Amino acid sequence: MNPIRVTVWGENVHEHKSPKVAAVYPDGMHNTIAAGIRELLPTAEVGTATLQEPEHGLTAEKLAATDVLIWWGHMAHAEVADAVVDRVQQRVLEGMGLIVLHSGHFAKIFKRMLGTSCALTWREADEKERLWVCNPGHPIARGIDTYFELEREEMYGEPFGIPSPDEQVFISWFEGGEVFRSGCCWHRGNGKIFYFRPGHETYPTYHDKNVRRVIANAVEWARPQGQWTGVSHCPNVKTPVEPIKPKAR
Amino acid sequence: MNPIRVTVWGENVHEHKSPKVAAVYPDGMHNTIAAGIRELLPTAEVGTATLQEPEHGLTAEKLAATDVLIWWGHMAHAEVADAVVDRVQQRVLEGMGLIVLHSGHFAKIFKRMLGTSCALTWREADEKERLWVCNPGHPIARGIDTYFELEREEMYGEPFGIPSPDEQVFISWFEGGEVFRSGCCWHRGNGKIFYFRPGHETYPTYHDKNVRRVIANAVEWARPQGQWTGVSHCPNVKTPVEPIKPKAR
Amino acid sequence: MNPIRVTVWGENVHEHKSPKVAAVYPDGMHNTIAAGIRELLPTAEVGTATLQEPEHGLTAEKLAATDVLIWWGHMAHAEVADAVVDRVQQRVLEGMGLIVLHSGHFAKIFKRMLGTSCALTWREADEKERLWVCNPGHPIARGIDTYFELEREEMYGEPFGIPSPDEQVFISWFEGGEVFRSGCCWHRGNGKIFYFRPGHETYPTYHDKNVRRVIANAVEWARPQGQWTGVSHCPNVKTPVEPIKPKAR
Amino acid sequence: MNPIRVTVWGENVHEHKSPKVAAVYPDGMHNTIAAGIRELLPTAEVGTATLQEPEHGLTAEKLAATDVLIWWGHMAHAEVADAVVDRVQQRVLEGMGLIVLHSGHFAKIFKRMLGTSCALTWREADEKERLWVCNPGHPIARGIDTYFELEREEMYGEPFGIPSPDEQVFISWFEGGEVFRSGCCWHRGNGKIFYFRPGHETYPTYHDKNVRRVIANAVEWARPQGQWTGVSHCPNVKTPVEPIKPKAR
Repeated sequence: MNPIRVTVWGENVHEHKSPKVAAVYPDGMHNTIAAGIRELLPTAEVGTATLQEPEHGLTAEKLAATDVLIWWGHMAHAEVADAVVDRVQQRVLEGMGLIVLHSGHFAKIFKRMLGTSCALTWREADEKERLWVCNPGHPIARGIDTYFELEREEMYGEPFGIPSPDEQVFISWFEGGEVFRSGCCWHRGNGKIFYFRPGHETYPTYHDKNVRRVIANAVEWARPQGQWTGVSHCPNVKTPVEPIKPKAR
Repeated sequence: MNPIRVTVWGENVHEHKSPKVAAVYPDGMHNTIAAGIRELLPTAEVGTATLQEPEHGLTAEKLAATDVLIWWGHMAHAEVADAVVDRVQQRVLEGMGLIVLHSGHFAKIFKRMLGTSCALTWREADEKERLWVCNPGHPIARGIDTYFELEREEMYGEPFGIPSPDEQVFISWFEGGEVFRSGCCWHRGNGKIFYFRPGHETYPTYHDKNVRRVIANAVEWARPQGQWTGVSHCPNVKTPVEPIKPKAR
Repeated sequence: MNPIRVTVWGENVHEHKSPKVAAVYPDGMHNTIAAGIRELLPTAEVGTATLQEPEHGLTAEKLAATDVLIWWGHMAHAEVADAVVDRVQQRVLEGMGLIVLHSGHFAKIFKRMLGTSCALTWREADEKERLWVCNPGHPIARGIDTYFELEREEMYGEPFGIPSPDEQVFISWFEGGEVFRSGCCWHRGNGKIFYFRPGHETYPTYHDKNVRRVIANAVEWARPQGQWTGVSHCPNVKTPVEPIKPKAR
Repeated sequence: MNPIRVTVWGENVHEHKSPKVAAVYPDGMHNTIAAGIRELLPTAEVGTATLQEPEHGLTAEKLAATDVLIWWGHMAHAEVADAVVDRVQQRVLEGMGLIVLHSGHFAKIFKRMLGTSCALTWREADEKERLWVCNPGHPIARGIDTYFELEREEMYGEPFGIPSPDEQVFISWFEGGEVFRSGCCWHRGNGKIFYFRPGHETYPTYHDKNVRRVIANAVEWARPQGQWTGVSHCPNVKTPVEPIKPKAR
């Protein structure tokens, strides 16, 4: 098989506004996420793109050469151009995998793909999160024990406003008492979509070895198994396969 | 139970541009569809709304008082204001039923709810369509025989660019050789969505007794069983249920 | 609408072997569950059936007159006759609702309907369970706050060996650290299936007002919306609708 | 990747009772199906098993060494031992792929995995079947044009008594006027299941190049992406992760 081509998209705003975030992610969150994938999937071709680049770094050429797109955004969702969202949606429907992280639950592209509110409840309180594996045989859970923990994370709680997931990979238990569907899979068109909850910008979540493992696994799971560029065509097939009888009016 | 409150939305353009369409639907397609529902569900409160009205007739008040919205559009999809689409989507997620007819497969609201291309193949050739019931016990198929036929219809063929339906109620056989998933159900948020294929504007489809039966059945199926206006809220729940231990940094 | 006809099936073994269980459920668990439904749905016609009755109380006549069947079993799953399981399955496919409680996750009928292992992890440790509502607008969650708690319950944990639920109504948080998909909906044939986790025999769970509310809501949700007794027929339709051309061999 | 290990299971009865079938499949249907896979997937390790062998050729060892099992049965479904069905089900839940062909819709293993009646309508009339691709980007449709035809086949028609497919790959148009969901995918446990309609024993269907292509594609699609042999374990996890407070009684 060819190497998987991954693009990690980062909003890249918190890192420049908050010294606390910059201290945890001195290279930017997108670069840390990309480094984690390179570490675990050495043959993958991993690049990055950010909000600040022309077309947010997601030109038609770049997307055409991307097998799996990873998305982290939070405070600047509204600044993402609709034309770029249209283009990413089209590529997902054609077959590109899409992995949406944490606060990306409110990204335009995630809401666009799912059609629901994607709302949830939340709390920032340095609390422990424990992610349980709902299916130890799922490729995204490969190498993960029955659960793993993050010592400090933001809490996300149910209700989570999503269509019923096609597959449930993780559910989180929070120290403060909540639960959340933390790892969810959907198929849309020819694309596979994975939402993975952890990753608040003030915590070192994307340095965590289990989180890195899950993201790398998800990249392998989401790589296209088939593609179809005609997914949005609506052809007029004037010539029928079978003869059509003239009708009396 | 309270009477079902139905709003039939019609694009209402073809009827005024094409004498052929005006001859088939002298009162407008929306009024013919509404009349069919009133005939079969005499206790329902059935109103209409059209593209040309302020806010396309779909004000917040009107939607709040609508249990099931029916949508027919075709040549003017692009003229539907995004703000109205946002509002309809919100109401569907809260619990309002949505029935999308025929060329509404490309309506902004349908694509918004499903997140996919909603593309298909098509042909206008006066051909026979036979709709097979995939589950005779489904409430939307009540009173329909194993199949029913429309002597002349536009053809819609697979591939149909939709997420896998939660329930398949009808599949069509076309004289010219194609097939199509003609009756599809989805759940999104608290709303039920039904897509029903027939209804090309130049044919008397909405005068057909089986088509009227299906639409009336779908209205009863799609009426809200539960509602939740908070579906898009994203509350910060600062106080945890359980105590959270202070963490060392 | 006609009154809902409910049959509560109880294994009725623990109550006679364990003084502890008999103390909590002196009338038998099935009668306590039935009393809860009668309390909240006064117009419902609620009966019971037990393992010890001829045909386990589930004759063809009884099932034909049942709209929603509730199932609690645990230590005697293997004693349920396959012929009765066949009959219940057939009625669910025709349209009867099925509500499976707690240890019924390993009942023959539950495994039969779902086709998977239905396995889980468990612990008896007098621990607190908090059930979160995943969709406050779902009819099964009507009248339930954002969550409710059971002070002492058995723990069930993920992985839960089920097909992906069509709708997720509750997820549980356990004091000991686990999570579980506690309220799950599926559609099979014309029947609606709801699995509801709580109800270990040594705890007064079926006296709890929230648990009773959920079960009553589920009864209303699961009542047949349509039925089809021919669901298992496989007819030879010798006469085609369209002419078939003779083929050269 | 390792070679895919495929076992083609054949009932192997018609071939010995009917000269007509023997003429079309002188080596037995299972061997013809196996030959088609070997032709298109030369690196696959393809074996066969039949009803007549001890344990129907599906010993625990054989199944443990099978990545994808293909199933064709018809007149002797009832002769398949339940213990073998149990074993196959367990392997599918662990991760083995399962491809069920044609009259296998009524095989014990298919009904076991799906939990529904799997009933349909049928007719033997030498009629043309046209299979439409519902998603040209699906890996099972790779190399198939927008549709393909079988000049003479048995007809299977809706309603087809199955749970809603996770993915719809093909829908058939029949000359005699019916339609059918001909290519359906489900996930159960870690196993992928594909049902493929064509293959009546008196027709040369498994010699057809498109049918062979679809089966080979399905083999690649269904190969395990992950496996979990503990899928049916129900462990008592006595030691909680978090401390549990003693409760007052």
